[in-house]
Parts: sequence; C-alpha cells; structure tokens
Amino acid sequence: MIKFNAALKTILDSVEIVESESVRLTDALGRVLAEDIYADSDIPGFDNSAMDGFAVKSSDTIGASQDNVKVLEVVEDIKAGDIARKILSHNQAMRIMTGAQIPKGADSVIMVEYTKKNQKSKFKIQNGTKEFVEIYKEVKAADNIRKKAEDIKKNELIISKATQLNCAHIGILASLGRPRVKASRRPKIALLATGDELVDVNQRLGPGKVRSSNTYTLYSQIIKCGCIPKNLGLAKDDPAQLEKKIRLGLDCDIILTSGGVSVGEYDLVKNVLAKIGTNIKFWQVAIRPGKPLVFGKIKKTLVFGLPGNPVSGMVSFEMFVRPAILKMSGQKEDNQKVVNAILEEDINKKKGARHFLRAKTRWKGNVYLTAISGPQGSSLLKPMSLANSLIILEEGQGPVKKGTRVRVRFLG
Amino acid sequence: MIKFNAALKTILDSVEIVESESVRLTDALGRVLAEDIYADSDIPGFDNSAMDGFAVKSSDTIGASQDNVKVLEVVEDIKAGDIARKILSHNQAMRIMTGAQIPKGADSVIMVEYTKKNQKSKFKIQNGTKEFVEIYKEVKAADNIRKKAEDIKKNELIISKATQLNCAHIGILASLGRPRVKASRRPKIALLATGDELVDVNQRLGPGKVRSSNTYTLYSQIIKCGCIPKNLGLAKDDPAQLEKKIRLGLDCDIILTSGGVSVGEYDLVKNVLAKIGTNIKFWQVAIRPGKPLVFGKIKKTLVFGLPGNPVSGMVSFEMFVRPAILKMSGQKEDNQKVVNAILEEDINKKKGARHFLRAKTRWKGNVYLTAISGPQGSSLLKPMSLANSLIILEEGQGPVKKGTRVRVRFLG
Repeated sequence: MIKFNAALKTILDSVEIVESESVRLTDALGRVLAEDIYADSDIPGFDNSAMDGFAVKSSDTIGASQDNVKVLEVVEDIKAGDIARKILSHNQAMRIMTGAQIPKGADSVIMVEYTKKNQKSKFKIQNGTKEFVEIYKEVKAADNIRKKAEDIKKNELIISKATQLNCAHIGILASLGRPRVKASRRPKIALLATGDELVDVNQRLGPGKVRSSNTYTLYSQIIKCGCIPKNLGLAKDDPAQLEKKIRLGLDCDIILTSGGVSVGEYDLVKNVLAKIGTNIKFWQVAIRPGKPLVFGKIKKTLVFGLPGNPVSGMVSFEMFVRPAILKMSGQKEDNQKVVNAILEEDINKKKGARHFLRAKTRWKGNVYLTAISGPQGSSLLKPMSLANSLIILEEGQGPVKKGTRVRVRFLG
Repeated sequence: MIKFNAALKTILDSVEIVESESVRLTDALGRVLAEDIYADSDIPGFDNSAMDGFAVKSSDTIGASQDNVKVLEVVEDIKAGDIARKILSHNQAMRIMTGAQIPKGADSVIMVEYTKKNQKSKFKIQNGTKEFVEIYKEVKAADNIRKKAEDIKKNELIISKATQLNCAHIGILASLGRPRVKASRRPKIALLATGDELVDVNQRLGPGKVRSSNTYTLYSQIIKCGCIPKNLGLAKDDPAQLEKKIRLGLDCDIILTSGGVSVGEYDLVKNVLAKIGTNIKFWQVAIRPGKPLVFGKIKKTLVFGLPGNPVSGMVSFEMFVRPAILKMSGQKEDNQKVVNAILEEDINKKKGARHFLRAKTRWKGNVYLTAISGPQGSSLLKPMSLANSLIILEEGQGPVKKGTRVRVRFLG
C-alpha cells in the first residue's frame, strides 16, 4: 500500500497546468495570475499632497508657531485632479487638496489644521482680490508629500505569475490601467456518485437506501476551490452504466467518482476505469480515513476514485484533489495553514497509517489547543461539520498523550 | 474623536438582520442559515455494514483463527441498497457490502480480508447450489456495524440558525433530504468612488489624474464577503452629482463612498449625506489608517463614507464594514482569526490612535512571527498586497520593541 507522501507526489507529478484566459478585473479575485505584471508607470505618477492644506516652501515656515504666525499669500487653489498654472514663489501658498499634484516651487504641504484664514483674508485689489493664510506650525521639506513612484516604480515586477490575486492586487492592477489580466482557466471537475444504495436528495428513500451526501459535499468542495463542477449525478453498480457516465466526464480536467473502490465483489469502479483505458497509478493509500483511493489518468484527465464514506471522500479531496487543483491552476504553494497545537486529550492510534482526525482548534493565550470534534468514524458527517481543522498523526506515531504538540491543518 | 470600540459598537447597534430566502443546496456553501435544522430522521437510518464482508452471529466465530477455521454457509448476498429476505441462523453467513442493511439474526460483520472461499465453495444440492465461506478471525458483537442514528438522531438540532454553512453541513442537509434551505439574503452593497482626480481603469490618464483603485479593491472586498455589489462608478466633487449618484444606492443595504470625507473645502460627501437626510452617527475615528470615516444611516440603509486613501479604505472595510455585513447576515461571530505573534522588529508608535499595520505573519516552530510588509503609508497598495494580516496596536500603546507579543488579525 502506498504511503501518503508517495501518493501525493504521484498525483502532483501527473498534473499539467491548464491554459490561461483573459479575465475582467471584477472577476479576478482569487484567480491565479498567468503572467508577470510589470508596472508600465510610476504609482503615484507625480508628487502629490497627502493632506488637505497649503503647498508652501518649507523655508517660509521656519519658526512658525501660535505666537509667531507667518502670513502667506494664497495665490492659487489646486483641487485634486487639477494642476497649478503658477509657480510658487517666496511668501506664497497654494491651497491644495489631498491627492493633488504639488506645484512647482513648493517642497512641502502644511495641514489645514495648522492654519487659519488671515483676518484680512480676502480683500480687493485693483484687478481682483487678494487672499492670505496664517501658518502657525513649521514644516520640513517633503512633509505631507507623497513622492512620485513611492508605491510602485515603473518597470518593477509588481505581481508575479502564479500569484493568487487578493483585493489589494486588484487595486494595483486598476491603478496600472489594466481592465483585464491573464489568469489560469478554472479547472472543470466532473463528479459521479456510485452505488445501488444511493438516491438523490429530492427522491423517496426506500428501504436500505441512503441519500447521496457525497454529491453535495464534493460539489461544495469543488466550488470552494474555485473550480467549475459538472455534476454527473448517480450511477448504479452496473459496469455499462458506470462506463457511460464516467465517459461524460472526459471533457473535464478531473473526474471524481465516489464509492465502489473497496475490495467487495460489487466494487466495480476500478475495473471500469481500467477498461476504458485509465492508467491506474495507485489503489489504496496508508491513510485513515480514505484508504480505498484509486488514482489514475485517462489521456489528459486525472481520475480520482474516492471512497464512498462521506468523511473519507471529503478528507481525500482536501489532501489529494485540492493540491492537484492548486498545481493545475499554476499556483506555487498552498496557502492553507499548518500549525502546531497542544492536544487536549489522549488519542489512541496504531502505527501504520497516517491519520487525519476531525478537530476543533482554537487560539488560547499564546498557543493553539486542539481536540477532536466527535467520534472519528469515516461515515460521520456531524463531527466533520463541527471541525475547523484536521489533526495529522504520522505513520510512525502510536498513541498520543494529552499535552503533546501535534500538527494541525486548518480546513479552508 | 470616537475610539475604535465605540465606533464599532455604534455601527453594530445600527445593523438590522436581512430577511431570509430559499436557497438551493448547490448554492448554499458559505451562506448563513436562517432556520434551525432539526433532523427529521436518524442518520444512518438503519444498522449497516461498515465493511465489505460477511454478516454473521459473533458466537459462531468464537475461537476462529488461521489454525481453527470456521466454515459457515453463505445463505444470501446483500448488496448495498438491498435488504435481506432471510433471517440469519446459526452457522450461516450473508455476503454483505459496505452500507448494506444488517440482516436480522446477525450481530456483526467480518471483513472479507479475514475470510476465504471454502474449497467446497459452491456445490450442487437437490434444488440449486450451496456455498460456504471459511472464517479465520473472531469478531465481537457490533464489530464493523454502523449503528442506526450513530451520526444524527431524529429530532436532534443538527445545525443551528446563524451558522455559516460549510461543506459537511451541505452533506448533512443532503442526507436529511433537504434540497433547499432558508438562508439570509446576500446583502446588496452600493459603491461610489468620489473625486475630480479619478478616472476609471480603462480611461486615459490626464495630468494630475489617478485611476480609481478603490472601485476595484472595495468591489473585491464586497464579493469576498459574499455580498452583491452595485457599482455606481465615479462621481465628481460636485454636490448635485454626488447627491444623484448616492441616491441610486438607496435600494441597497449599505452604501459605500470613498473619498471626500476629510477636512478640506472640496470634501463634500459628508455635507451631501447630511442634506439627503443621513443620520450621521460619527465622523472621524481614532485609528490609523482610516481616521476620516463617516458613518450614518438613511432610512434602512447604512452609509459608510470611507476615506479615499486606498489602504485606509480597505482597512476601514475590514474592521467596520465586514463586521456589519456579518451581523446583517445573521452570523453570530466573526470566524476570522486573531492570534498573538512575536514582533520581528521595533515599531514606532505614538499613543492616541489604534494602529493597524500591514504585516506578514508566519508560523515558525511553535509560534507566529510577524513583520510589517513594507512602508505603512495609507496610500501604498503594494505593502497591502503583500500582507496576510494586520498587526493591531492599541490606543494606549507607545513604541513596541522587537520580541514583544502583539495581536495579529489574519485577512480573509
């Protein structure tokens, strides 16, 4: 039986990166960039005011205080988006709004809070009015000025290929005037739940039947990973029907089946996969839950035969399918957090398989504490719904005592 | 000037929970449940086999081993989804598949791996064939049986109102036969960027102009919170135009404006909001970045006049708008993680305001380490794009030394 690390490596080695597509900025959040973004201009594009106030020469403010008010003539108003027509001379100020370009001749901005209108304020002169402002604080050169290129320098590599775009990246792309970017296409994932016992959520539940929860857990996991689901519904334990339905997924990047991969005589999925030409890379992994996992490839499509137990299917998705999706989308690393936590109870474990325990992990004081979120049967969805994390216990680990530090992986 | 906690309280006190709507299960991931879900049946609905194998009476296996093989007659095959027609008697077994209902008379299942076909296997009898199986392991009562109601008990409150639905919840709802659930309607959020200096991402950038990154950062943040954005575009610093465009957002749950809330003479948003009947609750908060925040309410619509600096707008959204959205959606608590981290560098801070520093926080050994992700100017998007977290420094804190434990809030 293959071990976890070898299984994951086999899967990742089989992954090819999908092609890219042009995506509108409003749809780009969370998408994986398929091009390097170099800045084609400085941001900001010009020295501008960080405050509402007055652009001045700092030398004109030397010694200014409440008791030593400096009076400057206001020679122009510069609104945001405007540019000054004049050049600032000594003993002059220009009223300037946040974001407006610093006029020539000025080297600093004094905040409006440190000024007041001169008593003389505006008065008529021969051909118009004059206006003055009282300054009662000294400013230094560069005060309250946002320098050109302070955030982003022209030709700088500002977002690299393979980055998953966050909200601030989207803002940077907008600032650089890019209404569209190249991103990896969203992988398309087919989903087929198998088993004579299954009925769909809105069907009558006859004796011996169960509703297919896997259809909905896996569908949700596909959505959560940003992929496009193709729901192939349910298939009976019938080779002809299985083959027909699985073939409907061959236009997808990944096919997920659930159920029918155990050792019983009615476990047909593996045989059908082999029959339609799947290169089966492994079957059964030394993990718990999730041992009966089939992985293979048909032409360019990856096929995961997931176990039918609901939690086994979900954990297999999280630990194997999700990393494949990330790599397929061109993403460099998994951002999902793995931390250490202090175990709040004894856990019984036999050496052999790697275990993934459904757990609640919480920050308390200066550490994470973790405890299982209920019974660990692989069919039990309730403890899975209460979990925010999986405790990872290694193959070589035996029973683990309360107080031990264990590895914990947060879910989503 | 109002402090952070008082500002947040004022906002949350103004929030009313939105109505609920019926949502299909395939659209329900991440939605907030607006009803208590009680189980209307046991899950599983019947005792069933956890393994592929043979249903037996455990008393018939006592002492079974490789050297002491017990031979039982196979009297029926039970596929998953089928139910047995016979009742199991002593020295009999029924072949059973994972998930199939345990037949009457059996109290345990022996895994197929601990059995082999009897040499005599099938042989003809008068009216058909007889089949036998060799058992070489003892099983105990209840072994490999998943008990009825083991996961969920009928009438149990299984998911409470105000829960944000995860993938396992979706599976539980499917198991219970609920193709739709009642969830809070997704809040609708109008977005208007203001300022004469702004042009849109695809427009020509004239002298003194900047592209409106806020339109795209805030749009992305709205999407990330699961809300429906209504992009009102850009407005000039003109009271009539501002009024007209802000009124277009009055059909939304929240209106966000950005810019025009500072102290300058062209900062008009606050005046326009007052004119159209906004009950302004506060203006200016003792935080950095994000001081010039206006908050008020027009009829049922919350209005946030966010500061125009890109990072100020984003941080204000994260710290004020997002909690309002969560409460509006009926969600009980914020799942976002706040932890402690060890500061990797000295940080200069004056007492007075609460600071939110853009930071990279990473797990190393048994602790989080954190460092700022670049210069902290409130217009600088690049450090924001590199941050995965905000360091929170309290109002009363002064300079903070390297090695100090600080509070860190992860972003999204």
